[in-house]
This record gives sequence, structure tokens and C-alpha cells, in this order.
Amino acid sequence: MTVAIRILGIDPGLRRTGWGLIVAEGNRLRFCASGTITSDNKFPLAERLRQLHDGLQKVVADADPHEAAVELTFVNKDAGATLKLGQARGVALLVPALNGLPVAEYAPNLVKKTVVGTGHAEKDQIRMMVKVLMPKAVFNSDDAADALAIAVCHAQHRNQPAAVRLSQQGAA
Amino acid sequence: MTVAIRILGIDPGLRRTGWGLIVAEGNRLRFCASGTITSDNKFPLAERLRQLHDGLQKVVADADPHEAAVELTFVNKDAGATLKLGQARGVALLVPALNGLPVAEYAPNLVKKTVVGTGHAEKDQIRMMVKVLMPKAVFNSDDAADALAIAVCHAQHRNQPAAVRLSQQGAA
Repeated sequence: MTVAIRILGIDPGLRRTGWGLIVAEGNRLRFCASGTITSDNKFPLAERLRQLHDGLQKVVADADPHEAAVELTFVNKDAGATLKLGQARGVALLVPALNGLPVAEYAPNLVKKTVVGTGHAEKDQIRMMVKVLMPKAVFNSDDAADALAIAVCHAQHRNQPAAVRLSQQGAA
Repeated sequence: MTVAIRILGIDPGLRRTGWGLIVAEGNRLRFCASGTITSDNKFPLAERLRQLHDGLQKVVADADPHEAAVELTFVNKDAGATLKLGQARGVALLVPALNGLPVAEYAPNLVKKTVVGTGHAEKDQIRMMVKVLMPKAVFNSDDAADALAIAVCHAQHRNQPAAVRLSQQGAA
């Protein structure tokens, strides 16, 4: 008997946070649900983070996952953009932790390498491979597709140590 | 009759988050409490953010502030340090927002200019001026002293628009 693990992948962003829920049963992956949580930039930052929190909390409550996975994204544009991403990411890591879930982090290249086969995949390659791996998958944004890719990555690497998951050469 | 406003200042950091509670009554400032919340770096990031959340949630529940203020700090060292700070900052902004408090943000230079009189003050000048402004103030870390300075800054600038609060020249 194999155990069915419900995995929630999260691709955090202040404007748009993607999420994707899959079930991993041995080597079989099954799509369950995905979506995009947005925050309204007409509101102050703290309120926008509360909107992300409330959206993610609803997803966790509805989806009832066993484990969560979040990509370790960097923004190289500037310190302001990195700080913004960090704030959204803090909320994305916090919400599953507050719900008692283990939260794994993955280097972006490991996610791409796991799903597409190369660490330098483009957005449309990720979308395509998510559909190949789980033909029933639907997603309403690149962020939701990325979140599903992160969940797939976790399904394959969840038993590896954190150092491997965070290494850019993790899948080499 | 002047209204007494309870203000919670927060100086966020992943390892150490300082907090300080003051009461502002007209032009009078009164120290109430301060402290430092730490997260244990032996735990995964999500768990450390949960530790900060739990500590801050207890402070908000005990201190029952009317308003919160957080410094808009940048770390120029590297993107990794900025991302870490952003994650802690996300939690620091979220917790008061979840408790229904308005959360103001302040440029670091405005905090220093308000408390010390110059935008380029050193840590020990901030500690000293916090003691001058509120002789009964006690703090167990630079972060707690900074948090009190942020609360003092909010007491003086809380009626100004966000653009002024976030401007480096805000107090000019």
C-alpha cells in the first residue's frame, strides 16, 4: 500500500501568489486544484500582506495538505523588489507553518530541472511539462503553473536533506 | 482632553525583532514596555517565522496597542540578506494587521532625524536620545531601542501622509 501525500506548492509574490495542490501516490502524481491569490496595490503594504494571508489560509483550510513547498526565488532587479518579494514570501512560509505543516524550500533551478529536465527552462516550458506530467492540470496564471511545478519537485525530493533541496545543483 | 495613543514600534529582523510600546498624550511620551523576540536558527525558516509570529502576537495581545509602526529598512549587503529581512518584515507587518491595527512605515532617516536630529545617527546616539525623551525607558537590545525610536517617530508623524513618512527627506 502506498500513502497518498497531499502537497501544496506556493509561488509567492506581493501582487500575485500562485498555489497548486497535487496528490503524490508513490510515483504517480495527480492534479487536484490550483489558483492565484492577488493583493490590491491600492492598499497599504500591511493590508496587502493580510490579503495574501487570508487567501492562503483559506486555501490551506480547504485543501488540507500534508506538506507545503515554496521556491527560494531571488529578484536581482534591486533591493526594493527583493524586499517586497521577501515580505510576500514570509507570509507564504508562515501560513502553512501556523497550520502545523512542514514547509520545504527549493532552489529555482532544482524545480526547473525536476520538471523540465534543465535548470534554465522558460515559463512556457514549465507550463507545458506540468500538463504532460498531469494532463488534467489547469492553472489561471504562470504563478499557479509554477506553484504546481514546485509541488511536483517536492513530490520527487521530499526525502532529501534541506541542503540538497536548496542547492542549485541539487538534481545534477 | 487629549487622547492617549498606545503605539507599538517594531524593528524587524529574522534573528532578533525588537519591539517597544509607548503612550503618546499630546506632546507627552511615556515609555510602557519593550523587548526582543528571537528565532532559533537551528529550525527551518518557516518555523523561525512562526516563532517571530507567536512572539509578536503575544506582544500585541498583552500590550493592546492602537497603532503600529515599522521601519522600512534595507540591507545593502546582498540579495540573500535582503530577502531574509523581507521575510521577517512581512511577519512584523502582518501580525498587527491581523489584529486590526493600522500599520505605518517609516524611512530610517526620518526615524533618526526625529529622535536624534540628524539622519545619520549611530546606534548609541539613538539609545541615548530614547533615554532623554523617555527617562524611564529600558531596553535589552539595540533592536528594542530602535523599536522605541520608531514608536516615537510615529507619535510625531502619524498624521502625515504615507509619502512623507517614507521619504528620506521627510523631516527636512
